[in-house]
Amino acid sequence: MSKIQEFRDYRSKMNEKLLNTNHKVIKRLYGIDTLTYQDSALDSKTKEMLGLVASMVLRCDDCVKYHLETCYKLGVTTEEILDIFGVANVVGGTIVIPHTRRALEYWQELSAEE
Amino acid sequence: MSKIQEFRDYRSKMNEKLLNTNHKVIKRLYGIDTLTYQDSALDSKTKEMLGLVASMVLRCDDCVKYHLETCYKLGVTTEEILDIFGVANVVGGTIVIPHTRRALEYWQELSAEE
Amino acid sequence: MSKIQEFRDYRSKMNEKLLNTNHKVIKRLYGIDTLTYQDSALDSKTKEMLGLVASMVLRCDDCVKYHLETCYKLGVTTEEILDIFGVANVVGGTIVIPHTRRALEYWQELSAEE
Amino acid sequence: MSKIQEFRDYRSKMNEKLLNTNHKVIKRLYGIDTLTYQDSALDSKTKEMLGLVASMVLRCDDCVKYHLETCYKLGVTTEEILDIFGVANVVGGTIVIPHTRRALEYWQELSAEE
Amino acid sequence: MSKIQEFRDYRSKMNEKLLNTNHKVIKRLYGIDTLTYQDSALDSKTKEMLGLVASMVLRCDDCVKYHLETCYKLGVTTEEILDIFGVANVVGGTIVIPHTRRALEYWQELSAEE
Amino acid sequence: MSKIQEFRDYRSKMNEKLLNTNHKVIKRLYGIDTLTYQDSALDSKTKEMLGLVASMVLRCDDCVKYHLETCYKLGVTTEEILDIFGVANVVGGTIVIPHTRRALEYWQELSAEE
Repeated sequence: MSKIQEFRDYRSKMNEKLLNTNHKVIKRLYGIDTLTYQDSALDSKTKEMLGLVASMVLRCDDCVKYHLETCYKLGVTTEEILDIFGVANVVGGTIVIPHTRRALEYWQELSAEE
Repeated sequence: MSKIQEFRDYRSKMNEKLLNTNHKVIKRLYGIDTLTYQDSALDSKTKEMLGLVASMVLRCDDCVKYHLETCYKLGVTTEEILDIFGVANVVGGTIVIPHTRRALEYWQELSAEE
Repeated sequence: MSKIQEFRDYRSKMNEKLLNTNHKVIKRLYGIDTLTYQDSALDSKTKEMLGLVASMVLRCDDCVKYHLETCYKLGVTTEEILDIFGVANVVGGTIVIPHTRRALEYWQELSAEE
Repeated sequence: MSKIQEFRDYRSKMNEKLLNTNHKVIKRLYGIDTLTYQDSALDSKTKEMLGLVASMVLRCDDCVKYHLETCYKLGVTTEEILDIFGVANVVGGTIVIPHTRRALEYWQELSAEE
Repeated sequence: MSKIQEFRDYRSKMNEKLLNTNHKVIKRLYGIDTLTYQDSALDSKTKEMLGLVASMVLRCDDCVKYHLETCYKLGVTTEEILDIFGVANVVGGTIVIPHTRRALEYWQELSAEE
Repeated sequence: MSKIQEFRDYRSKMNEKLLNTNHKVIKRLYGIDTLTYQDSALDSKTKEMLGLVASMVLRCDDCVKYHLETCYKLGVTTEEILDIFGVANVVGGTIVIPHTRRALEYWQELSAEE
């Protein structure tokens, strides 16, 4: 199974378990999370790029993968992704580099998937 | 003296002192910092919004102020700024709220300056 | 004006401004924030202690102040507060010490207020 | 070998190696770590819950696993654990979600172990 | 009163209050903190430089000030301090710059004090 | 394949891919990264120790591995490494312990390699 599929499966399996707990705070947070990236003053694509750069500087690999997927679906180009990597690495420093290596690998797998 | 002017003065005074040290690494980092936000695949405005959201989740008030200024100059609207605040608070959690309070205050001072 | 009053005034003034923006994500996040600390499986007092220790290790002075206030109102004792400081400093390291100094000062002002 | 056993084995093997170095600072820090979670003004169970929420917002998976184990032994219920997850996710934001997925999985494995 | 004196006074006043609580964990942590920077395999000067760079990347201004003072007393030169600033800024990114501005200012005040 | 070799291979493969993108910001950041650790006022060995402690408190395992390798090549002794671990754990707290376990394991593999 590819890295992409493995990530997606685990993520959706555990998200389902978390939501099945019916914990009010957790459910509402998931609701807000969805709302956050919908078109409003900024369009969805820009917001996903914001989510990606925020995830990178906070060095959350799974969050990075998720936003890479949504960015990919929304048509963000490789050149634009590299610009986002650039901002993340300059703002967050060289500790972001290992996450950037994994992000680039994941992005290239997404591109190869089709 | 206004909060805006105070921030600008201290920032430029100390940046000058840092660059006057002629330390190679620090000088080059300042150079990269400038390059990072210039038009490339993404335009300068989008990149400044990325810089703003990254600064917010990393909770760096001075970085937030700086990017608010550049966003303001580049015509980012208040509605767009609030969307950026939204992403930052959802990704980074309620610990970002105190920084959002200060960011909104600074943004309103920038808007009132003219 | 006391440090306590200054903090409360600024906090409520800017919270009002943030909520007056009517930004959906921000409003909902404030709603969740309130819900989070209400009695459920854990009582409100325990949850406020959790909020305090989380704020300390994340080194958010304003969040610390807020949770110190709610802990104080809910009857957390000084000995219990010190235990929370202990956990925060051991988990988060000596970089938490400066925040602990300010937290102790604020706690003592709260105690002296009556 | 189960994930639980694997974690426990690696942790105790490497803790032993670290303590065998006889480095004074490291040994003393381990001593403090033990002391921190013992009954005092707050009981051990509350302190372990504090340790858990602190570990979650700091996004340290191994620390989370450890505190989940001690919480489990001390009789923290699943409903209480979910409340702790709630505080951690609201304070720390959606970047805590991936760690919450892994934490829930580990908690369910602990529950299934008996 | 100079910034240096203000920092020293507040720090020692509040440290005394914290130690006067006689909280075992906090007292022991202060003890370890002292031990950490004493001569051992690495000499005190090198360890203080390590403490400084760690404080900078964790962006703890008060910790930075403290280690700048000890570095100053132990004869670290301005050129060496700038090298430490360089490592901190490259590893930790441009969010370290505002802390570097304040650190340079404090260092120059220390140098001017005599 | 050993853990050391696996880390080195992945790191150099992905660094090459990142540099092959010819993204100006990323390339320049890599250039600065190299410059940062070269002999200047502080020698390369001291700077690598600074890089190690910074990586540890920021809890970046891959960065830690990299600096352990360079420290090893530059003749840092095990006693000195333990002193660095000590500073990192005291400044950064017990959340650094899991990273210290992995760091010690990696260091011992480096020592066994020859």
